[in-house]
Amino acid sequence: MLIKRYNLQLTTGDGIALHDLTPQIESHLAASRMQNGFVTLTSRHTTTALTINENEDRLLEDVKTFLTQLIPPQAHYLHNDIHLRNCPPDEPENAHSHLAAMLLGSSEVIPVSEGRLVLGQYQSIMLVELDGSRERTVAVQIYGE
Amino acid sequence: MLIKRYNLQLTTGDGIALHDLTPQIESHLAASRMQNGFVTLTSRHTTTALTINENEDRLLEDVKTFLTQLIPPQAHYLHNDIHLRNCPPDEPENAHSHLAAMLLGSSEVIPVSEGRLVLGQYQSIMLVELDGSRERTVAVQIYGE
Amino acid sequence: MLIKRYNLQLTTGDGIALHDLTPQIESHLAASRMQNGFVTLTSRHTTTALTINENEDRLLEDVKTFLTQLIPPQAHYLHNDIHLRNCPPDEPENAHSHLAAMLLGSSEVIPVSEGRLVLGQYQSIMLVELDGSRERTVAVQIYGE
Repeated sequence: MLIKRYNLQLTTGDGIALHDLTPQIESHLAASRMQNGFVTLTSRHTTTALTINENEDRLLEDVKTFLTQLIPPQAHYLHNDIHLRNCPPDEPENAHSHLAAMLLGSSEVIPVSEGRLVLGQYQSIMLVELDGSRERTVAVQIYGE
Repeated sequence: MLIKRYNLQLTTGDGIALHDLTPQIESHLAASRMQNGFVTLTSRHTTTALTINENEDRLLEDVKTFLTQLIPPQAHYLHNDIHLRNCPPDEPENAHSHLAAMLLGSSEVIPVSEGRLVLGQYQSIMLVELDGSRERTVAVQIYGE
Repeated sequence: MLIKRYNLQLTTGDGIALHDLTPQIESHLAASRMQNGFVTLTSRHTTTALTINENEDRLLEDVKTFLTQLIPPQAHYLHNDIHLRNCPPDEPENAHSHLAAMLLGSSEVIPVSEGRLVLGQYQSIMLVELDGSRERTVAVQIYGE
């Protein structure tokens, strides 16, 4: 089994923002020449998530609205009492971003068959920024032959 | 490492419906003769999910009630303004289904040890239909030796 | 590809409780001498979950509060009508725990590169007990070379 690794780096949008990573992952898969195997994706942050769903502009807006209503940023969270924690005073108040990241999950595994990601017609792999804008890194490992 | 691939195809129930896939996956695993490795499962749709939990009739009803209350189908979602999107006029109004799919997740990875799925006594692998009834496909890849 | 398997066993805290498993997983990875590959983690229970996020005391309290508000234990769930099910009369009333487990997910896959878990600086792997205290088992399989 061969393993190839790549890092995807991107500057995300403000607040909650979804970024389609599918073209870059497909490009790395093509460069790897792997025909059969799988890909693991890991967002190396605690206020981002990965999701596989439809990249449709109005749906992405619905995601932002839904998450903001489900986990209101202005509610009181203990994690946001920065002065009571052992951390720099400019630490962001982002407990809602952590909670959303846990619900959505920050890793994915996708099969590879005959050199293609095994995904449905409407499935795109998206990074969900939950506390942007920031510089973010997604680890892509391709395993196979 | 050997790789075997299978597609599970099923006609799902109306609205939200959970379907236990464990017996079919175990049957493919037995046929593959793999003793040690892992299985990836991918539902190739944007309004379904996969979950591993207890297949108990009354709990499955609770799942339907919970998701319907958490993400009401009748609320306003931008994705449901079909006339404002570049899509066929008979596109379903199913933003709530997409949002539930993102929360639950549409892929799983399960270890295989001595020819058996590594699962607990009460764990079943279930497809969660969120916008049924439909014809659905779950990609099963078994990796190992 | 080599495969090594381990079981992590722990006694969890009461109600909702998060337990950082990262040091034990890193220790098994070091003992396995695997340099490149990946790790699968599976919690073999239907009222626990796995999450990768920041192990910060006040955030973990926020997780408990958030889940308790989102899925109130005292609400009516069909699964909690123990007398209407075919199960022992001392079965716990824990539908809320199952629902939270489905939202958070009970498996993870983490890449391994040069002998290290590919995780970000603030990412810890945590078992989320949702119906404790109990004895729990997390299956760890390490695949690689």
